[in-house]
Amino acid sequence: GWVRSVRSQKEVLFLHINDGSSLESLQVVADPSLETRDLTFGSAVEVQGKLVKSPHRMQNMELKAETIRVVGPCDVWSFPLKMKERHPLEYIRQFPHLRCRSNTLSSLLRVRSEATAAIHSFFKENGYVHIHTPIITSNDCEGAGELFKIETSNESRESREKDHFFDVPAFLTVSGQLHLEVMAGAFTHVFTFGPTFRAENSQSRRHLAEFYMVEAELSFTESLQDITQVMEDLLKTATSTVLSKCPHDVELFHKYVAPAQKVINATGKISYSEAVEVLKQAAQTFTFKPEWGCDLQTEHEKYLVKHCGEVPLFVINYPYDLKPFYMRDNEDGPQHTVAAVDLLVPGIGELCGGSLREERLHFIESRLQRYLDLRKFGSVPHGGFGMGFERYLQYLLGVDNIKDVIPFPRFSHSCLL
Amino acid sequence: GWVRSVRSQKEVLFLHINDGSSLESLQVVADPSLETRDLTFGSAVEVQGKLVKSPHRMQNMELKAETIRVVGPCDVWSFPLKMKERHPLEYIRQFPHLRCRSNTLSSLLRVRSEATAAIHSFFKENGYVHIHTPIITSNDCEGAGELFKIETSNESRESREKDHFFDVPAFLTVSGQLHLEVMAGAFTHVFTFGPTFRAENSQSRRHLAEFYMVEAELSFTESLQDITQVMEDLLKTATSTVLSKCPHDVELFHKYVAPAQKVINATGKISYSEAVEVLKQAAQTFTFKPEWGCDLQTEHEKYLVKHCGEVPLFVINYPYDLKPFYMRDNEDGPQHTVAAVDLLVPGIGELCGGSLREERLHFIESRLQRYLDLRKFGSVPHGGFGMGFERYLQYLLGVDNIKDVIPFPRFSHSCLL
Repeated sequence: GWVRSVRSQKEVLFLHINDGSSLESLQVVADPSLETRDLTFGSAVEVQGKLVKSPHRMQNMELKAETIRVVGPCDVWSFPLKMKERHPLEYIRQFPHLRCRSNTLSSLLRVRSEATAAIHSFFKENGYVHIHTPIITSNDCEGAGELFKIETSNESRESREKDHFFDVPAFLTVSGQLHLEVMAGAFTHVFTFGPTFRAENSQSRRHLAEFYMVEAELSFTESLQDITQVMEDLLKTATSTVLSKCPHDVELFHKYVAPAQKVINATGKISYSEAVEVLKQAAQTFTFKPEWGCDLQTEHEKYLVKHCGEVPLFVINYPYDLKPFYMRDNEDGPQHTVAAVDLLVPGIGELCGGSLREERLHFIESRLQRYLDLRKFGSVPHGGFGMGFERYLQYLLGVDNIKDVIPFPRFSHSCLL
Repeated sequence: GWVRSVRSQKEVLFLHINDGSSLESLQVVADPSLETRDLTFGSAVEVQGKLVKSPHRMQNMELKAETIRVVGPCDVWSFPLKMKERHPLEYIRQFPHLRCRSNTLSSLLRVRSEATAAIHSFFKENGYVHIHTPIITSNDCEGAGELFKIETSNESRESREKDHFFDVPAFLTVSGQLHLEVMAGAFTHVFTFGPTFRAENSQSRRHLAEFYMVEAELSFTESLQDITQVMEDLLKTATSTVLSKCPHDVELFHKYVAPAQKVINATGKISYSEAVEVLKQAAQTFTFKPEWGCDLQTEHEKYLVKHCGEVPLFVINYPYDLKPFYMRDNEDGPQHTVAAVDLLVPGIGELCGGSLREERLHFIESRLQRYLDLRKFGSVPHGGFGMGFERYLQYLLGVDNIKDVIPFPRFSHSCLL
């Protein structure tokens, strides 16, 4: 493992060694004669000896060293991490290749790994087929947003426009939804969990150019309740798994980064129309006046979550004109509302978005040929949702900046390593 | 589910309904009066009734229908899949949005999903931390190969060269290895399992522009044997899991696509130098004359696998000059061989590649600053490998064309959907 502390006393040498398997380090007790010049904070060592019950209260076991070999020395003067110092997240962010050596980032990465496994297990145990939806795509799911375009690196600028590698312009995916919908025509439950991309020129704490989305699609589903239930179950199961598997890692965040979020045992639900009424009656004045038919702004979302008791809040049935073409018309008036849902969580805002999909051919007849084909040959009522994985981790751990919950953040002006 | 067959007799109507959860369809027995014009092959139906023990030998249970509702009709004339027809893989490949409705592709996708889960479980159970290595990167791991370059779609051609979104040229990753090596400096076992990209202008059965790689990195490892052991365990565990979880899906491939591969219970191992001797003494004449220092060609690899009894074959200790800078010098002569390994499997060729990494600073001093930093601050002996996931599926199922083992294949001149 790697040396986290060296304490040399007259009679005894104490080391703490960490191998990344947990936040806890192993205490090594050695004869001071085993100390060498290379045995410093950050060095990699191989220690042989006997694992014995520790006389100290702080740990169960300690290692009585017989040999200590420094396999990789570490120049403490140039190493940017310092012994027993709590470095701010902004500081370690400068060292994308070394920040995993800090307690905070190694805890984060263990939590991220557990959360990933928990999400895969949740879907597997509920009979979902996992689909690798494509990264390179020739369509743009949302129709909105800034896309990354793909070219081969040796294409000359002259040939660029006419000779695409794929014959057509190709982009990095913004969502796997349409590809999951294809699969929802053959499997009743499918999910994907992979990278998605937005070329937003933003330096905000909330946006990355490359981030991970969990997306699910359910066939033979005619109620938005079925979708919100899966979102809620996913959130509860993943969260309780992470809390039970990584209690110390999570505790570190709640101790040093942000106070603990409540465990999710309650959620709220409100319709968009009710939400607008609540906002209109609020004592607070908003920068954006709440008005039926307008998008909910961050200030509105915050107010609503607070109003409903600081629990995850489902907002359902949005105006028809606010949402993309594939969402299902509620037929509560001429193109009035669609069966869409956003899940807002305290401190983060929108964590998940979903909807019933319009399965009725005549409602979307003027669209994409292939999208229509999916409705022609055994179309089924279905719906689904997506959850931003980094936002989930931010919510879980109370991390303010999204760049601190992904191993190698990519955003405008920055693609280190 | 979706109707797979309709058989109308005088007294009784038989349907087979499939919901994608397995290759098996459920037999529905109904009164002929429940038949409607819309109840055709491919249509989506909701059937209510009683699940009863079947009197027929072919299935355990059948459904005695009380109501049948066609929720999505299917125009059988324009639907490209036909009842009870075994469509060739090349034929269904034309319909990326509908081919999952065929038995072959739905079996493939279930196997792919199980194999994905099995690989995640294997690493998790062995204490590996899962890392999302980045898709967009500013470096090119292998130094070789054709890269895809990323631009924002609204960048004008004028500004393109000077104003990159990330300030530097950015590419789609060809391997997560360097990023895993970063993590192997903080965790003793890490793995990644995600998409990788090559802009090879190839229409071959063996190449895709977007494919999945399983990559692992192990710290405190000084022997190539440790690496080959993990490769072997991974292969055996994933394969036995898939065979036990999806026996019918695998059987379909072995029945209609290619004869069964032997289950992996034996592997061979040979050094590169020995391999060249074997090739030199072969009765067969090769197009490429085998010579120490030259790459092994497909014809050589095939011969070696056959020579060793058609089992997965590890070839170890390749010439120094054939392999990239980060592989560990065996010091068996001045820059003679490196601790590299390729795993060759029958019918496919190279399935995995790995090596011990050069952890000694002075051996690679003239390289990347950050790569050097990783060796400066607590460097450890380590090694790792990558496995092509699609090649693994081809090997497992005997599928000849790599385009048939991925949900949405991308290759030159083709990016459908």
